Amino acid sequence: LRSGFGEVIYCSGKSMDHLVKIFLNFDEKGVDVLGTRATREQYEKVKEMIPDAEYDEIARIIRIQRTNHEKKGLIAVCTGGTSDIPVAEEAAQTAEFFGSNVIRIYDVGVAGIHRLLSKIGAIQEANCIIAVAGMEGALPGVIAGMVDKPVIAVPTSVGYGSNFGGLSSLLTMLNSCAEGIAVVNIDNGFGAAYLGTQINRLTEGNHGE
Amino acid sequence: LRSGFGEVIYCSGKSMDHLVKIFLNFDEKGVDVLGTRATREQYEKVKEMIPDAEYDEIARIIRIQRTNHEKKGLIAVCTGGTSDIPVAEEAAQTAEFFGSNVIRIYDVGVAGIHRLLSKIGAIQEANCIIAVAGMEGALPGVIAGMVDKPVIAVPTSVGYGSNFGGLSSLLTMLNSCAEGIAVVNIDNGFGAAYLGTQINRLTEGNHGE
Amino acid sequence: LRSGFGEVIYCSGKSMDHLVKIFLNFDEKGVDVLGTRATREQYEKVKEMIPDAEYDEIARIIRIQRTNHEKKGLIAVCTGGTSDIPVAEEAAQTAEFFGSNVIRIYDVGVAGIHRLLSKIGAIQEANCIIAVAGMEGALPGVIAGMVDKPVIAVPTSVGYGSNFGGLSSLLTMLNSCAEGIAVVNIDNGFGAAYLGTQINRLTEGNHGE
Amino acid sequence: LRSGFGEVIYCSGKSMDHLVKIFLNFDEKGVDVLGTRATREQYEKVKEMIPDAEYDEIARIIRIQRTNHEKKGLIAVCTGGTSDIPVAEEAAQTAEFFGSNVIRIYDVGVAGIHRLLSKIGAIQEANCIIAVAGMEGALPGVIAGMVDKPVIAVPTSVGYGSNFGGLSSLLTMLNSCAEGIAVVNIDNGFGAAYLGTQINRLTEGNHGE
Amino acid sequence: LRSGFGEVIYCSGKSMDHLVKIFLNFDEKGVDVLGTRATREQYEKVKEMIPDAEYDEIARIIRIQRTNHEKKGLIAVCTGGTSDIPVAEEAAQTAEFFGSNVIRIYDVGVAGIHRLLSKIGAIQEANCIIAVAGMEGALPGVIAGMVDKPVIAVPTSVGYGSNFGGLSSLLTMLNSCAEGIAVVNIDNGFGAAYLGTQINRLTEGNHGE
Amino acid sequence: LRSGFGEVIYCSGKSMDHLVKIFLNFDEKGVDVLGTRATREQYEKVKEMIPDAEYDEIARIIRIQRTNHEKKGLIAVCTGGTSDIPVAEEAAQTAEFFGSNVIRIYDVGVAGIHRLLSKIGAIQEANCIIAVAGMEGALPGVIAGMVDKPVIAVPTSVGYGSNFGGLSSLLTMLNSCAEGIAVVNIDNGFGAAYLGTQINRLTEGNHGE
Amino acid sequence: LRSGFGEVIYCSGKSMDHLVKIFLNFDEKGVDVLGTRATREQYEKVKEMIPDAEYDEIARIIRIQRTNHEKKGLIAVCTGGTSDIPVAEEAAQTAEFFGSNVIRIYDVGVAGIHRLLSKIGAIQEANCIIAVAGMEGALPGVIAGMVDKPVIAVPTSVGYGSNFGGLSSLLTMLNSCAEGIAVVNIDNGFGAAYLGTQINRLTEGNHGE
Amino acid sequence: LRSGFGEVIYCSGKSMDHLVKIFLNFDEKGVDVLGTRATREQYEKVKEMIPDAEYDEIARIIRIQRTNHEKKGLIAVCTGGTSDIPVAEEAAQTAEFFGSNVIRIYDVGVAGIHRLLSKIGAIQEANCIIAVAGMEGALPGVIAGMVDKPVIAVPTSVGYGSNFGGLSSLLTMLNSCAEGIAVVNIDNGFGAAYLGTQINRLTEGNHGE
Ligand SMILES: Nc1ncnc2c1ncn2[C@@H]1O[C@H](COP(=O)(O)O)[C@@H](O)[C@H]1O
Ligand SMILES: Nc1ncnc2c1ncn2[C@@H]1O[C@H](COP(=O)(O)O)[C@@H](O)[C@H]1O
Ligand SMILES: Nc1ncnc2c1ncn2[C@@H]1O[C@H](COP(=O)(O)O)[C@@H](O)[C@H]1O
Ligand SMILES: Nc1ncnc2c1ncn2[C@@H]1O[C@H](COP(=O)(O)O)[C@@H](O)[C@H]1O
Ligand SMILES: [Mg+2]
Ligand SMILES: [Mg+2]
Ligand SMILES: [Mg+2]
Ligand SMILES: [Mg+2]
Ligand SMILES: [Mg+2]
Ligand SMILES: [Mg+2]
Ligand SMILES: [Mg+2]
Ligand SMILES: [Mg+2]
Repeated sequence: LRSGFGEVIYCSGKSMDHLVKIFLNFDEKGVDVLGTRATREQYEKVKEMIPDAEYDEIARIIRIQRTNHEKKGLIAVCTGGTSDIPVAEEAAQTAEFFGSNVIRIYDVGVAGIHRLLSKIGAIQEANCIIAVAGMEGALPGVIAGMVDKPVIAVPTSVGYGSNFGGLSSLLTMLNSCAEGIAVVNIDNGFGAAYLGTQINRLTEGNHGE
Repeated sequence: LRSGFGEVIYCSGKSMDHLVKIFLNFDEKGVDVLGTRATREQYEKVKEMIPDAEYDEIARIIRIQRTNHEKKGLIAVCTGGTSDIPVAEEAAQTAEFFGSNVIRIYDVGVAGIHRLLSKIGAIQEANCIIAVAGMEGALPGVIAGMVDKPVIAVPTSVGYGSNFGGLSSLLTMLNSCAEGIAVVNIDNGFGAAYLGTQINRLTEGNHGE
Repeated sequence: LRSGFGEVIYCSGKSMDHLVKIFLNFDEKGVDVLGTRATREQYEKVKEMIPDAEYDEIARIIRIQRTNHEKKGLIAVCTGGTSDIPVAEEAAQTAEFFGSNVIRIYDVGVAGIHRLLSKIGAIQEANCIIAVAGMEGALPGVIAGMVDKPVIAVPTSVGYGSNFGGLSSLLTMLNSCAEGIAVVNIDNGFGAAYLGTQINRLTEGNHGE
Repeated sequence: LRSGFGEVIYCSGKSMDHLVKIFLNFDEKGVDVLGTRATREQYEKVKEMIPDAEYDEIARIIRIQRTNHEKKGLIAVCTGGTSDIPVAEEAAQTAEFFGSNVIRIYDVGVAGIHRLLSKIGAIQEANCIIAVAGMEGALPGVIAGMVDKPVIAVPTSVGYGSNFGGLSSLLTMLNSCAEGIAVVNIDNGFGAAYLGTQINRLTEGNHGE
Repeated sequence: LRSGFGEVIYCSGKSMDHLVKIFLNFDEKGVDVLGTRATREQYEKVKEMIPDAEYDEIARIIRIQRTNHEKKGLIAVCTGGTSDIPVAEEAAQTAEFFGSNVIRIYDVGVAGIHRLLSKIGAIQEANCIIAVAGMEGALPGVIAGMVDKPVIAVPTSVGYGSNFGGLSSLLTMLNSCAEGIAVVNIDNGFGAAYLGTQINRLTEGNHGE
Repeated sequence: LRSGFGEVIYCSGKSMDHLVKIFLNFDEKGVDVLGTRATREQYEKVKEMIPDAEYDEIARIIRIQRTNHEKKGLIAVCTGGTSDIPVAEEAAQTAEFFGSNVIRIYDVGVAGIHRLLSKIGAIQEANCIIAVAGMEGALPGVIAGMVDKPVIAVPTSVGYGSNFGGLSSLLTMLNSCAEGIAVVNIDNGFGAAYLGTQINRLTEGNHGE
Repeated sequence: LRSGFGEVIYCSGKSMDHLVKIFLNFDEKGVDVLGTRATREQYEKVKEMIPDAEYDEIARIIRIQRTNHEKKGLIAVCTGGTSDIPVAEEAAQTAEFFGSNVIRIYDVGVAGIHRLLSKIGAIQEANCIIAVAGMEGALPGVIAGMVDKPVIAVPTSVGYGSNFGGLSSLLTMLNSCAEGIAVVNIDNGFGAAYLGTQINRLTEGNHGE
Repeated sequence: LRSGFGEVIYCSGKSMDHLVKIFLNFDEKGVDVLGTRATREQYEKVKEMIPDAEYDEIARIIRIQRTNHEKKGLIAVCTGGTSDIPVAEEAAQTAEFFGSNVIRIYDVGVAGIHRLLSKIGAIQEANCIIAVAGMEGALPGVIAGMVDKPVIAVPTSVGYGSNFGGLSSLLTMLNSCAEGIAVVNIDNGFGAAYLGTQINRLTEGNHGE
């Protein structure tokens, strides 16, 4: 999938030296690079060496993108609340990096179902939906009941108390009665985007390794 | 609350002898009796001694009701699926026993949101809503977002795998972003009905002990 | 419920810019605003822009209240210990913001039952009770056994060791043998107050959306 | 402790042959024997060989007691509900077997605190209290707040749903704010009685091995 | 998705009467029907009324299929061991019912990696892979590392001890380092097949509701 | 128990102002005061107002003790490792504050059983034993097998990984096969000492409230 | 390892037909066969076809052993209680099947440490020790502290209440402070024996595949 | 085992004074010392007193090694990812300190199985393998399927979300279907190395205490 799209670095927990070395290494090969879970401090160090590096504070993503691929298909990225946006942006920007068109539909949680209903037309246009939700995590199930495309459910650790670090939304998603839901790890926007890209590309007849 | 409405016996795990003795004891005092979590076998033994006893197989309730109270107010009892009906009936019949009018709106789970939307008008008539759901347990949250009365959320143990005996729906309900949700124990239809009756009666200006 | 009473902002985790923008937005519309889970730092930023803003350090609440509603009914807010007071104050001040009279009865935990017994008369006056407790969380059950109004049980994360972040008190409350207990999430004073307000208003014949 | 009082056999899971052999072995030595967690079937087999064997259905105890010790001191055994009685009887009969006087005070759960308050005088007479409770498990904490003797807390698996096999009452007891609580395993009436006997005997100046 | 392919009934826990009624109801409409989690006893009752009904003991599926759709695309269904086959067959037969070609590759668990390696060519042919595994649940991760199509991971409850009813394999799958993994509930062969069908059809340019 | 011995303040989480006020309040009454879980910072503030205050860094205890009670009986305080000493010292110093003699036997964990065996004579002298252990938590069980006095088991949160904050040692202690073990909450040295004092005093015929 | 020693069949959950087929299949090849977790019913069916098959009720093992290997080295198999013997026998008989000498030292749990101490000489003779224990699971840690050979720790599900199906002994073993402990799954006697055989053979200079 | 190889100090949580004292104490005796879980700050303090002390930042190990033992046998230390290297180095350097030859094979996780396959020859040379992995933790199971030496499985806490601090990889390893796996605590590189050394030495005919 990555062929032609560049490499991904999971920055969390990597030492500064080690991280910069990996970035430089990919950069020398001329490939595009996406660094996820990056701190601003990590970005600044990378930027010193590779001035083209860009940073998105919310998605915590460092991006070095020089090639300009035409984007294909469509993935809808939805969130229940505004606190889920960092995870959603990790997903959305990763999907774009890998060549998918993305439509963002944020803050449409099920506690105010009419906001979601008013957007459902747009959501149904997509080849697959990434639904990001914390706390009760009910969003993917409600969407999956209204569209017939795969819904990739991303539980987030947003919440407190009996949320237990995202466990409540994870279990909700795994136990949904709606059909067509694919669950990934808590806060794993990257993984959702990768899976979404694989699915989105299937529609293109473009699915060689 | 119970005054004038009779007594409740939790039948589960009680020995036959002990159970019949409690029923007879209350019956002699002339009070109405509601036996919850009763097996058919327990019912038949009670029936031998108290021929007026009735049994509801689904709610697993034995009822000996001789007084005829006018029912007041309105409680809506909703379920996500048909498998949640036993718990919902425990709630509905308990609420009726304690003198509330009950409207049943079953199988309106969030995976097919339009069924729920088509009933929302009826639900909004009630003084409070008992929302019963297993698996993902998202029903109470969606209802609470559409009505401004207290929603009593009853998780059920319906489901399998990572449902963990009702844990998934319990956590969903505790973590709902919707406002106005009161959670009770897994499968506790009786407790939901008791609470619902207390709330329903507050509207009557009738709330002495 | 909120109509006529203003808007609520959950401040936790919101960026300074985003938060101030929401506050200003509501303020321009002239509605009262309640900000929960707010840090002093957040308050000071809001205060710069909206000098009428007030802050309660213990409840962690920012309040901009200009309209002066007559308070109605009565909600009793009780705690087991003094460490539960922040959650109780979040509840009490939210209930007041939404137009309820509140009576505070703090530090009446069941390990010294006589303190509670001496206050029970006052507690019985209320239309509903919010009982806040950490550690073993037994307070709501004992109160529910002595009053016939709904008891809203708020587990807190106060404790250590096998308290597991509030799990012990949450489970205690869900498993209470007393009738008439509504449980909310750990530390969720706001949710308890919202539910309490809904219940308290039912007594007023005032329950339109 | 056991010296002079006989031996104890944990019958659960033991094969018939193995069990009868152990009983006969002790019987031949002329020592008294207490068999806990015994089924009626096991009892009947033992009875065939040792006609003096007695069985208590509720406590699930087989007892072969020939010596007649004077009982000393006093242990109070209390329960929250009637379903906790099997565990309480395991405790009470074990304590009697080991030579303690026992007073039984059953069904005094905290959801109806006045029943407990009316018995507190009797409870305060004891050298230590065994408090047995399922569901929310709040009884030991309330008792410990009212007496200044050690309270041995026995959680039971009585309950359903989020009781999780006794976990809820276990956690309640471990997290009690009351001082002077000793917790044992879920349903461990025997262990509570053993500990209670050790404590009760300390008052006798009789505490050699 | 179901349009043109028939209806699905989750038979587990449904009463005989209720179940037969639903089957008859669909049958009268002339739609094909798939009954999952069905006991042989349930099947025999259905068969009495609808002689065309067929039963697969291993998949626990009742099928009434009269229309003959041409199957499209390809889904690979793999298992780690032979004990995972019931779940895999639920998946495979559901996918076939919904019109997908299925290739079965069973007993290729990672503890004997060479069996898997020898089949990897066949697996790579599919549009998506359903990988079913209990115990350690490592199969989907290893497959996902070798193919660039979506891998639907189905944890099973096969195992004992610290498997905790499928929890161990569920967590393994959620935490896989391989990219492109979609997790469903423990033992949820049906859900995996539904999702797989949605994905498989995307390749057909056939994805209207 | 406390009568004549002074008051206890749980300092953790108390605000500086609030804490100093409580200390001053007790001090004015002339009672001795023990402050547990106190930081050095809290101590220094208290010391400014009450120069007689002393601090033990390891036990995290502030003590203001003016009366000089004769110590009675004997409690043995044992630990598995040196990291358990802070909890053990909280226990030991609390027990001394309440008038018991204490013998400290530290670092006798079961992984080197001979160290424990060499001290068992001294341990057997005590009226009860407080056994403090983290990680595997096996110490209380081994001691209880060798002495016939009550063993108060204190699990500590010392450890890492699957220790899960003390859960592993807590469960070990609750499930011990040895007879005569009383478990308290994780890290609850204070609670163990209180219970130990109650038991120690029973030997004195001194057990009025 | 198995080469020359025969094959192993995990019988649990296998259908009668399937099981008999596998046994016959191996038998025709003339290899020895060990069937673990076998019911008596399964054995009898196998015996009908293969008269040489033997069954051990306690270990639940079917054995068809025709070759007669000289046993080598020494493995000590120890248990804490008598209820752990089935798991220990699964281990011991598997180790013997794979050609190791085995010494059995049962019922030497740490609650009566002297029984263990009296056997320690014999235990130290072995090349490795398999220590099987339920409930608190402390046996492997104490043994590991006294010998300098690898100790394979097998937690069993023996116990009740907060044992949680073997979790308590599993965690004890994983958190042991003693050095040289290898943990396997709950009740996994077979796995322990396999590992033990690998280790025992290393002493023979015989460790080719 | 340690005899002739020196002593080990677990530095985590030890006070500076206490730590330095222990180091000096061993140093005076002239034995080699290995300090695990040491911070750089701790190292610098030790270095002030013992200039020969060396520090490895990644393994967090302080080493004072003066004797020069010939290394024997071979242990392979493998990791799934680069984030597991700190735990692996703790294991590798400990094994070397105790006199084993070590081969390091890092970043061969199962999501890219071909990297592992290309190293399997080297791995098979070792007397035992230490396999370190976080997230899904599948590495030990795959290796154990390919070699017939004991595999010591070390789960790490590397990961996020439903990894739950290493629980997911721990459970994976305990539930592996591969034969010959010995599990140690999460992040316990030291314990793995100790066990590995015991096993490695068995091949030398050198296994006296
Ligand atoms: N946010 C993320 N969450 C989980 N996995 C990620 C994330 N970002 C990147 N990855 C994975 O981590 C790999 C890079 O890991 P590394 O070699 O440690 O940089 C990528 O190829 C992805 O498979
Ligand atoms: N289904 C139920 N679930 C929980 N509690 C119940 C249920 N039915 C009855 N109860 C409670 O159990 C009490 C009767 O318990 P008992 O005295 O054991 O019969 C009633 O007064 C109720 O408080
Ligand atoms: N370390 C401790 N752990 C648990 N409870 C404690 C501890 N220290 C004191 N306590 C209890 O907390 C009470 C004082 O609480 P407070 O009124 O909040 O200061 C004391 O009377 C004890 O019951
Ligand atoms: N009691 C047991 N527990 C766990 N695994 C076992 C057990 N007995 C046999 N096995 C493993 O299961 C394999 C046989 O599985 P199967 O092919 O299903 O018969 C054996 O080769 C062993 O690896
Ligand atoms: Mg759908
Ligand atoms: Mg609402
Ligand atoms: Mg009440
Ligand atoms: Mg007390
Ligand atoms: Mg892939
Ligand atoms: Mg003892
Ligand atoms: Mg050892
Ligand atoms: Mg192997």
